[in-house]
Amino acid sequence: MRALFLGFGNVGRAVAEILAHRERYPGLTGADITVVGIVTGSHGAKIDPDGIDLAQALSEFHSSGGFPPALRAGGDIGYDAVVEMTPLDRRRRGEPAITHVREALARGRHAVSANKGPLAWAFRDLSRLARDRGLRFLYETAVMDGVPVFNLVRHGLRGATVHRVEGILNSTTNAILSALERGESFEEALARAQRDGVAEADPGDDLEGWDAAVKVSALANVLMDGDLPPESVAREGIVGVDAARVRETMARGARLKLVGEAWRDADAVQGRVVLREVPMTDPFALVEDTSNILRLVTDLAGRIVITEERPDIRVTAYGVISDLLTLIADAPQRPM
Amino acid sequence: MRALFLGFGNVGRAVAEILAHRERYPGLTGADITVVGIVTGSHGAKIDPDGIDLAQALSEFHSSGGFPPALRAGGDIGYDAVVEMTPLDRRRRGEPAITHVREALARGRHAVSANKGPLAWAFRDLSRLARDRGLRFLYETAVMDGVPVFNLVRHGLRGATVHRVEGILNSTTNAILSALERGESFEEALARAQRDGVAEADPGDDLEGWDAAVKVSALANVLMDGDLPPESVAREGIVGVDAARVRETMARGARLKLVGEAWRDADAVQGRVVLREVPMTDPFALVEDTSNILRLVTDLAGRIVITEERPDIRVTAYGVISDLLTLIADAPQRPM
Repeated sequence: MRALFLGFGNVGRAVAEILAHRERYPGLTGADITVVGIVTGSHGAKIDPDGIDLAQALSEFHSSGGFPPALRAGGDIGYDAVVEMTPLDRRRRGEPAITHVREALARGRHAVSANKGPLAWAFRDLSRLARDRGLRFLYETAVMDGVPVFNLVRHGLRGATVHRVEGILNSTTNAILSALERGESFEEALARAQRDGVAEADPGDDLEGWDAAVKVSALANVLMDGDLPPESVAREGIVGVDAARVRETMARGARLKLVGEAWRDADAVQGRVVLREVPMTDPFALVEDTSNILRLVTDLAGRIVITEERPDIRVTAYGVISDLLTLIADAPQRPM
Repeated sequence: MRALFLGFGNVGRAVAEILAHRERYPGLTGADITVVGIVTGSHGAKIDPDGIDLAQALSEFHSSGGFPPALRAGGDIGYDAVVEMTPLDRRRRGEPAITHVREALARGRHAVSANKGPLAWAFRDLSRLARDRGLRFLYETAVMDGVPVFNLVRHGLRGATVHRVEGILNSTTNAILSALERGESFEEALARAQRDGVAEADPGDDLEGWDAAVKVSALANVLMDGDLPPESVAREGIVGVDAARVRETMARGARLKLVGEAWRDADAVQGRVVLREVPMTDPFALVEDTSNILRLVTDLAGRIVITEERPDIRVTAYGVISDLLTLIADAPQRPM
């Protein structure tokens, strides 16, 4: 599997780090994954049709702050899959990630997207294009990092219908709410989340519930056959929440959580992000800091809850590797 | 997919009930599943190469207490898959279910087992046989009913290594512990579990931890490449536990739970079933009555917890249907 990386931020570098040291992971022994190109928006590019030495590339990127500028990229090298890992731009409604995925599929390449924009704003279009071309469009890491939410439903819930999803899906807001419970101020909590690399330098999309709304869209569109863009998800954030409110909720035997949910309403799928008092009998109440949780309510398989406990960046990166291994397993001419 | 059912107890009848009314479930529309035979140990058999009318068969079974005795069964009818749903016999180390699965594979048929015996006592042998013959051996319902534990790992955790599993896996003991917390006596709680159909008439294997031990073996063997029979799983049960002990644990801010676990120890996989005080910060503490929970500790995908919330018998039956749909999806000549 020859992969072309688009984007080399935290996730891309963590993927490269795992692949550079794949001998540390018994399950990756012999994994036939070669990175032939890394193309970034503003940090240059690195191309090697024979396979990039990832340890060396990481070292070069860290010491030089990037790769040399690339005059042209990706056109001439042979690759099987594009791995879209550029940052989500909510104001541009998922572009340029959507175009990256569409162009990859149009060129006959598989597409792996760690970016959730293509799921939230263009899922029907892109999945139809992939199907029509006999290609795969995979995106396991887009929601709940490498925890296999999408594979769980695709392979584990055949024939069952998902009626409802609800989850704590945004780590920054959950980490801040946990910190407020411990007595920190909002400002202290946000600053710490930023220092820890959990929150972005511009945390607006997290704090205003946009990140959770985009994930609700992704889940609604992929798991419930919805057609729900993030702008149609009713949205609440945690701006204005303070330690007093959080602790009052605790005094009532509950916890304040930012919950994203989607449900079927007649023939459409609706969604919202709400700040909710969760009783201590609900596992959502135990999800602290950067942990995530998702409940699936189905007709045949009952109620299933999946929790990601305190992930690190490696779990996010693993989702991308999981998708690449799925491509390899699905390709009969390239048995693992 | 032409299926031959072996066993027609609670699970088999619930599978038949769903298939008899598949129009109620949008995801089962057009599901190409035909039951051509139902063979029971002591309640006769029903064979129809054109496909059994399952609603009529259920009605006949309920009104007559069984089917007519069968002189011979299964040899002459054409079928693609055997569905093993006979009761587990722990003292016979999973027989005759293991023989049923082995003979199906030897005859070139796929095997679906709702019985966990074949996983606990013969997994390596049977999975090798299936692989050698180009057949599938599937068993999603054997642990945590239709909640896709095995599909989650098979398709969602490619390349990751499971280092440890731990779970609340037995519904009878968990329902009794929950009832003790509410102030019932052990005898009342057991009688109620039996009335509700949660506990067997002979509940010994549940109460002594055998059922959980068999599930620990199944998980260790399938998910961790173990070779761990249930007799090698250190085992504790809930016999002798009373309301006082359960409530003392609650007074300490914890809950008493029967936890099954398996872990890697040098090159071997070890397992045990233990009665443990679980702190209220652990989602295990919130798993009440017939709910189940499983934590997977992995190298690349971090810590993942999957919870089954208050399942009914339909969820158990769904696991069998999920496996049959997997067989259909995997057979390129029979696209769904």
